[in-house]
Amino acid sequence: MANTFIPGYTYGQVPEAPFSMHDFELLKQTVMFTEKDAEYLRKAGEILHDQVNEILDLWYGFVGQHPHLLAYFAKDGKVDSSYLQAVRKRFGQWIHDLCEKPFDQDWLNYQYEIGLRHHATKKNLTDHAQAAPLIHYRYMVAFIYPITATIRAFLARKGHPAELVEQMHQAWFKAVVLTVVLWTYPYVKQGEF
Amino acid sequence: MANTFIPGYTYGQVPEAPFSMHDFELLKQTVMFTEKDAEYLRKAGEILHDQVNEILDLWYGFVGQHPHLLAYFAKDGKVDSSYLQAVRKRFGQWIHDLCEKPFDQDWLNYQYEIGLRHHATKKNLTDHAQAAPLIHYRYMVAFIYPITATIRAFLARKGHPAELVEQMHQAWFKAVVLTVVLWTYPYVKQGEF
Repeated sequence: MANTFIPGYTYGQVPEAPFSMHDFELLKQTVMFTEKDAEYLRKAGEILHDQVNEILDLWYGFVGQHPHLLAYFAKDGKVDSSYLQAVRKRFGQWIHDLCEKPFDQDWLNYQYEIGLRHHATKKNLTDHAQAAPLIHYRYMVAFIYPITATIRAFLARKGHPAELVEQMHQAWFKAVVLTVVLWTYPYVKQGEF
Repeated sequence: MANTFIPGYTYGQVPEAPFSMHDFELLKQTVMFTEKDAEYLRKAGEILHDQVNEILDLWYGFVGQHPHLLAYFAKDGKVDSSYLQAVRKRFGQWIHDLCEKPFDQDWLNYQYEIGLRHHATKKNLTDHAQAAPLIHYRYMVAFIYPITATIRAFLARKGHPAELVEQMHQAWFKAVVLTVVLWTYPYVKQGEF
């Protein structure tokens, strides 16, 4: 957990997600997520804890190198750096939450809130920004790859056995897929989710 | 390439996808897909070629063990095994196509067609089945995990160097994410893709 106050971070204070714990259990089965994975995520959280800034540097560098991605933080071609920074703090907290928090109703609710903030429903609102009105769906799912592939080096950096690194990495991969499924709820047509 | 005729397999004979090659290039950049990955996929195709049936056995076994997944091949709780078998042939061909075909306009078009066949637009139609009217969106994205994780053992089985297996596996992972993004186009609200 971060110790500092993060503007716009409202974990535990958002409405209920339109997705039941029962459905979430079936979704977890589909990505082969077990209690063991929850344990590996806790371990990953310990390892990543003091590397979050470096991870965000890498991910933000990736976005910064791709004008088609940076555009989501821009208005009329001009990047809103205070918006970028505000989102960055919450993105860092998401790394902590993904590894450290139980996947309970609060977690589920907050994933939906994060989805709304990428979708036209609530994009820009939290940070009073005036950037692009939504993150296009395609990139929400596409990000599964870079967010998963790049974390491995950070998990491996502290000399843990290769097998444990692999197990933590697989747990992270599953958790990212779960997250992205939930984040994209607002984009999907009624009744088709 | 399979040598046998596959009912309902209409690669190269479908309408144009509502997604341009230009947008697809940006999507490839977002999953870090390069020309090297295309080469690794070709190599993966050679290795997987004679293992396709075994891969499908594993994937179908996974579906079969989960009633919430098997339901998509069922009507009134009764599984339609001829529908399952018809889909299986095309699923096998998809493995070949993913590894062996260039990601050109024909490939793009056919991914859209596959998406429509999972979506309510065309589900059941190709095989004159009467199963569930659509595959729910959530499982389309969730399947990125099992389809990616389980392929690794098949890539490693023929004694290739660990580094090459890893490179082929990463290329496969990227290609599966690309595929799933395109397959889910019909589920996404107008203008939000």
